[in-house]
Amino acid sequence: MQPNLAISTVIFALRPDENGRNTLMIPLVKRIREPHLGKWALPGGPLVGNESLDEAAARNLRETTGLTPRYLEQLYSFGAPERSAGAAAERVVSIVYWALVGTDEADRAVESENVHWLAADCLPELAFDHNLIVEYALWRLRAKLNYSRVAHGFLGEEFTLAQLREVYEIVLGRPLDKGNFRRSVEASGAIIPTGRVVAGASNRPPALYTYDKTRSLADRGPLNKPSDY
Amino acid sequence: MQPNLAISTVIFALRPDENGRNTLMIPLVKRIREPHLGKWALPGGPLVGNESLDEAAARNLRETTGLTPRYLEQLYSFGAPERSAGAAAERVVSIVYWALVGTDEADRAVESENVHWLAADCLPELAFDHNLIVEYALWRLRAKLNYSRVAHGFLGEEFTLAQLREVYEIVLGRPLDKGNFRRSVEASGAIIPTGRVVAGASNRPPALYTYDKTRSLADRGPLNKPSDY
Repeated sequence: MQPNLAISTVIFALRPDENGRNTLMIPLVKRIREPHLGKWALPGGPLVGNESLDEAAARNLRETTGLTPRYLEQLYSFGAPERSAGAAAERVVSIVYWALVGTDEADRAVESENVHWLAADCLPELAFDHNLIVEYALWRLRAKLNYSRVAHGFLGEEFTLAQLREVYEIVLGRPLDKGNFRRSVEASGAIIPTGRVVAGASNRPPALYTYDKTRSLADRGPLNKPSDY
Repeated sequence: MQPNLAISTVIFALRPDENGRNTLMIPLVKRIREPHLGKWALPGGPLVGNESLDEAAARNLRETTGLTPRYLEQLYSFGAPERSAGAAAERVVSIVYWALVGTDEADRAVESENVHWLAADCLPELAFDHNLIVEYALWRLRAKLNYSRVAHGFLGEEFTLAQLREVYEIVLGRPLDKGNFRRSVEASGAIIPTGRVVAGASNRPPALYTYDKTRSLADRGPLNKPSDY
């Protein structure tokens, strides 16, 4: 028998926790049936009609959060036979995507009794193999932070160096040295000063930067699309 | 209707071309039915019984070539709705793996009327979207060459620097400077002199090296397995 195919998405956004501190969070959906009834799971569902895998993942994200992704990339396909073992186990193979949502947008995300945002590095036991999936997505996000402009997915069009460093610190989960960070970011040539400064700031208003758009958010070689999300 | 799921594998090996020159080749299977009857396609098939995705890809490889992989990694899942458009199009989503076969083993590979090895960077028009898939696998292989010990997948346990450089030159498709190559490989610390030299060589027999096994063939973070292929 053919296994069932599902598309699931790990959606990262920076959102304030209960103490108002920006935290790397992902939205999870409460299982309303067996197996794993009552546990939290990644948003996902079947491939519908004529949509591509990318489109299914974007629809997934829209339906769960009401948002559109700033960045969307295929992560990995998970198909261990034991992963979907439940009551009357039908085998499920999940093609998993990961996505970034801009911080401005993330504030408008839908939350409900069945959709909650939880801190990505401090999750309860999730349904199926979803803890492993989130762990792998986190690893990929952290790795990409070092060799692409993927951090831009969390930021607005223009940002200060302090805002950029905050993104790095939250995602990596550790404080970074201000001076070293500035030097390494400037040396990379990935960001460009806009010539503008933060409006309304008093004495020495911080400079605004933007990313060099000629660099794609992440290099996927022959799979690069003409326009990134 | 659920799309069909297939596992396909891009299998790389170094094999002599008709002029006896070592070439990066992949085995392809002739399509014996529509769609794309008569064209060459990547070896593949459905997921069977209780096997994992990795096991299905390894079985794939064994059934097509009679070989076992030295390295096997998931590449990407391809599911554009138009990719499988044929006569009575059933939609197919392919989870694609890429594999390396050791050069010693590759000589024993099965070849038949319906299975041929062709040069990876000079392929005819393949069935479905398989040209794009091979192009992406090549891109991934070349990228990995620079930041992992994946080249070892092509070599025996012990090798000379000249043999290692030949692997790099064939995969990258360009000659490399001997001195620079030696320096950058030695500086990486990834290879270790065994203290032995090539037996039977006369005057200045070349030294034999091996890879540092404490480094995995490629870092996949939480997905790393205790033993690599």
